[in-house]
Amino acid sequence: MSVTSPAGPSQATVETIKQKARLLSIYSMMSTTAAGSGHPTSCMSAAELMAGIFFYAMKFDPKNANSNNDDRFVLSKGHAAPVLYSALAEAGVFPVSRVMTLREFSSELEGHPTPRIHGVDAATGSLGQGLSVGAGLAIGARMDKSDTRVYVLLGDGEMAEGQIWEAAEFAGHYKLDNLTVIADVNALGQSEPTMYQHDMETYRKKFDSEGFATEVIDGHDVSAVLAALDRAKAAKGRPQAILARTIKGHGFAEVAGKMGWHGKPFSKEQLARAIAEQGGTPPVVPPDPGKSYERKPLPTPPEFPAAPAPEYEAGKPVATREAYGFALKRLGSVNPHVVAVSCDVKNSTFSDFFGDAYPDRFCQGYIAEQNMISVGVGLAARGKVPFLDTFACFHSRAYDQVRMAAISRANINLCGSHCGVSIGEDGPSQMALEDIAMMRAVHSSAVLYPSDAISTERLTETMARRPGINYLRTSRPKTAILYSKDEKFPLPGFKVPRQSAQDKVTVVGAGITLHEALKAADQLKSQGTAIRVIDLYCIKPIDGKALAEQIKATGGRLVTVEDHWPEGGLGEAVLTALAEAGAAPSKFKLLAVNGMPHSGKPDELVDAFGISARHIVDAVKEVSQ
Amino acid sequence: MSVTSPAGPSQATVETIKQKARLLSIYSMMSTTAAGSGHPTSCMSAAELMAGIFFYAMKFDPKNANSNNDDRFVLSKGHAAPVLYSALAEAGVFPVSRVMTLREFSSELEGHPTPRIHGVDAATGSLGQGLSVGAGLAIGARMDKSDTRVYVLLGDGEMAEGQIWEAAEFAGHYKLDNLTVIADVNALGQSEPTMYQHDMETYRKKFDSEGFATEVIDGHDVSAVLAALDRAKAAKGRPQAILARTIKGHGFAEVAGKMGWHGKPFSKEQLARAIAEQGGTPPVVPPDPGKSYERKPLPTPPEFPAAPAPEYEAGKPVATREAYGFALKRLGSVNPHVVAVSCDVKNSTFSDFFGDAYPDRFCQGYIAEQNMISVGVGLAARGKVPFLDTFACFHSRAYDQVRMAAISRANINLCGSHCGVSIGEDGPSQMALEDIAMMRAVHSSAVLYPSDAISTERLTETMARRPGINYLRTSRPKTAILYSKDEKFPLPGFKVPRQSAQDKVTVVGAGITLHEALKAADQLKSQGTAIRVIDLYCIKPIDGKALAEQIKATGGRLVTVEDHWPEGGLGEAVLTALAEAGAAPSKFKLLAVNGMPHSGKPDELVDAFGISARHIVDAVKEVSQ
Repeated sequence: MSVTSPAGPSQATVETIKQKARLLSIYSMMSTTAAGSGHPTSCMSAAELMAGIFFYAMKFDPKNANSNNDDRFVLSKGHAAPVLYSALAEAGVFPVSRVMTLREFSSELEGHPTPRIHGVDAATGSLGQGLSVGAGLAIGARMDKSDTRVYVLLGDGEMAEGQIWEAAEFAGHYKLDNLTVIADVNALGQSEPTMYQHDMETYRKKFDSEGFATEVIDGHDVSAVLAALDRAKAAKGRPQAILARTIKGHGFAEVAGKMGWHGKPFSKEQLARAIAEQGGTPPVVPPDPGKSYERKPLPTPPEFPAAPAPEYEAGKPVATREAYGFALKRLGSVNPHVVAVSCDVKNSTFSDFFGDAYPDRFCQGYIAEQNMISVGVGLAARGKVPFLDTFACFHSRAYDQVRMAAISRANINLCGSHCGVSIGEDGPSQMALEDIAMMRAVHSSAVLYPSDAISTERLTETMARRPGINYLRTSRPKTAILYSKDEKFPLPGFKVPRQSAQDKVTVVGAGITLHEALKAADQLKSQGTAIRVIDLYCIKPIDGKALAEQIKATGGRLVTVEDHWPEGGLGEAVLTALAEAGAAPSKFKLLAVNGMPHSGKPDELVDAFGISARHIVDAVKEVSQ
Repeated sequence: MSVTSPAGPSQATVETIKQKARLLSIYSMMSTTAAGSGHPTSCMSAAELMAGIFFYAMKFDPKNANSNNDDRFVLSKGHAAPVLYSALAEAGVFPVSRVMTLREFSSELEGHPTPRIHGVDAATGSLGQGLSVGAGLAIGARMDKSDTRVYVLLGDGEMAEGQIWEAAEFAGHYKLDNLTVIADVNALGQSEPTMYQHDMETYRKKFDSEGFATEVIDGHDVSAVLAALDRAKAAKGRPQAILARTIKGHGFAEVAGKMGWHGKPFSKEQLARAIAEQGGTPPVVPPDPGKSYERKPLPTPPEFPAAPAPEYEAGKPVATREAYGFALKRLGSVNPHVVAVSCDVKNSTFSDFFGDAYPDRFCQGYIAEQNMISVGVGLAARGKVPFLDTFACFHSRAYDQVRMAAISRANINLCGSHCGVSIGEDGPSQMALEDIAMMRAVHSSAVLYPSDAISTERLTETMARRPGINYLRTSRPKTAILYSKDEKFPLPGFKVPRQSAQDKVTVVGAGITLHEALKAADQLKSQGTAIRVIDLYCIKPIDGKALAEQIKATGGRLVTVEDHWPEGGLGEAVLTALAEAGAAPSKFKLLAVNGMPHSGKPDELVDAFGISARHIVDAVKEVSQ
């Protein structure tokens, strides 16, 4: 439906788009009034912009709404969902009647957009994330040498979010000229006017400074909107920002430009007056026939052949973080969809092995973790298989983005290196001690925590095949290789590197603590006590029944040990899995980092904070009594 | 030690500062070489800037280094810790010998600064947070009508973090002219050159657009540094940014301006050459006598008299989020240190009750959660008692900042409203389902989850008295009042609103699920089954022994139910507390949100996602079998 002409829009086109804008505004009001909740005024400020984007600028096939051959749209101000649904309906993605089911339990048209419907690539509604998603779609298109253009509608309130400026600097730096920002500057937030209100010059300066081709327009002047969209499309070498001065509640004088109308639907009487003010009678929308529309299927990562087997020198310790780098490079050789982004730590997480081998599929994310995660969501929406890395602790910077990625049903893979106190001298700011808790509490996530190079390699490959959010926790210290290169690591699953019929206690660890558990097993053996040691390389999901059998074999006596806070980590995951399998341990001790750590040598810290072999030996004795 | 003169620095002063800079650079090199790790080159780029700040601009008493009467300094680029320690030592806060214990297990001089030492207000090392902390210190000083000035040293790599721009817009908007940014633009990141390298003009434009008085200088020209600091001090009505072009590794030609030297100490031979290049012999630093230095005590919130008792109309339901607003206002009347910040949701979280009553102690944070949390850390460092609110799900935006606040030993109070599926129509982007997991995994945190207005009020007051990170989870729906206004809610603690000698099963809930549990108890009673219902208003800490007695009284049969993901939430917290008390439940069922929710009415969703009274009744029957 792209009708752009080099000569600029004709008057007839302008009139057509005006009519579309009027419909989008009216449908937005009608649907929110029907729902009894929602944000009509936030839709009304954007009606002309949305009409211009969808019915003038975008190359868009309503029957194939997320096609990599066409343009893409991201509604960053997700609370304006009704205006998006109205545009999708008016374009023919689903009937207009469906818009009137907004926010109902049985409707896929939610209060904020989710990718349950065609035409939505990523969930929005946590503000300030959409420009990063758009940048991911845009840089993915560039990798594909596609002429896809990406349009992102921003609200002005959300431009207070730092992530917007992370995305803007990213787009500017990479000269993403296939990315157009349209900012709906309606000057009113939820609780107060926005920081800059209608100071368009400040917004202009901000986008200018990021390297955008920037212009300020009247967002309710359709001719101006269309002309700006034309100029954006013609811009070369840099992203574009169309900064539109708008009025919240435009088109209904009772509320237009007034505080106190955020997130409030109109009464039926107000709705009638608003439609009258827009010069028409209410459109007749038939009742929606129900749940017959095709819902967008959940995406799955593309298939690929097995990666070459890992090769490691026998007896030579390798850090799991380094094995991740090798694995990613090997994966790159068999899966052309794999791409990677790193936040200025590629030489510590070792994704530089991949980046050096496949520079066209690697992207420097600089120190901007929020943007990296949401760029990954955009890349995934284009069918890429993104691997996104930083120090494990700094993924906490982007927890909201990971949460939203799960709501987006995105297939993204995260690697967090340098977990726990075992990093040593750098101190607590660089130690991830909450990442297992954080990543477990993500819908349909997998949380993987390998203890050697072989398992790291195999799990990295598994991540590329598994839908959803996959998290790999890697460690800084070099550790011994435990498994042969042909070993399999299914999800869920665990390994039992030490076992005998005489085992008194089961000790479950992963990463550095597995190696401490093995040391403890040796010490205890020399004292005549056998223990079972479990490598819980997959902390989520856990097969509670299989685990329960192991613990039962040791009389229900269990010690868990982890380089993490006690809350929400490996120990709690194990306990819950056992309890749900009806097999609570008879005696139990959870070892975890037991105080605020500080700088020191890795071994000093592992011991001082309660998770070394010595503590495991003591705990085994305690639960054996 | 402020020696600023209106006539500008004398040549003698310039020479003195040059000498100080040389010492700071040399001590930084010596200490990192001694430690065998650390970031000497990141210190060397900042030596002249640090010398100018500490020995020329700042009003600073080394014997009272965090005084509210003097100026404050925040090292945002925390990896340059050695240059800060060198400055503090040279100023007399501790002996220079102590700097040479850098990164040792027994030293409080950690790899990145923490407030274990005098002169540090907040932990840094997760980049991009220091300007927000500085803004908090600055706005706190303004609230106190103090002439404190705040200096923040930024690195250029961290200026890619969006939070820097959240802080900049905040400082610009509030015209914090007592805040000076000094940016050490050395052009080199860890793994690559920075995004803008030495493009000083782009940085200038960016700070200009945020309303700063901005200038670009040569950061190694001491005269220029001192003159810029003078001009900053004289600036009125806006914050200032001194953008200093510097060379990473300045003063040692072998490494200066070269990639590959991030986070690498010099060999002893290199150190000798570097010191020789700086024109001197190595300073003689005596061995450090050991652990005799006074460590900074942990802060405690100021004491205050009891707040007026809550008053609610009997039988009238009140949302806990609204009770929070009442509580905060009441607290404000008895505790002058209480301040509040809200991220454009004060009319939803109800902190506007406080803001309307105490406008001088309330601050609009706009939609920038990261900045809000770190501003809170700065406010707390000035002795304020900050309450920081947004929707519970959006605290996930600032998890890294909360993590760093814990390392900062900050006393901050967070309120997250609109938790769980019980918010209804707005959909999953607005539903916090991971906040309990996230906040539990914060060192020394308290996680509070009230079920009625009275407990909300009492817990809010308790937060203002408790050191550390306190999190209050409030709900959107109105709920019945359960307790009398004189009821006490100690931490740890729980209430047992339903109990009898015949109880078959214990059901633990909180918030909306407690009310569902009470409904379930009524239904079961009518069927002849008695259950015990526990209101776990304090999810962290938990008194496992006391809880175990309750569960033991019901035959070890336990059901937990929560409006949260299963991972890391109330259920796991209870299980772990019981297991550690040696009292694992005999039969157990964890009810939690069991699928990705969507829009719908609150009751529909609570039922559809497995946490309504109906599900509790079924679970009770299941564990009773």
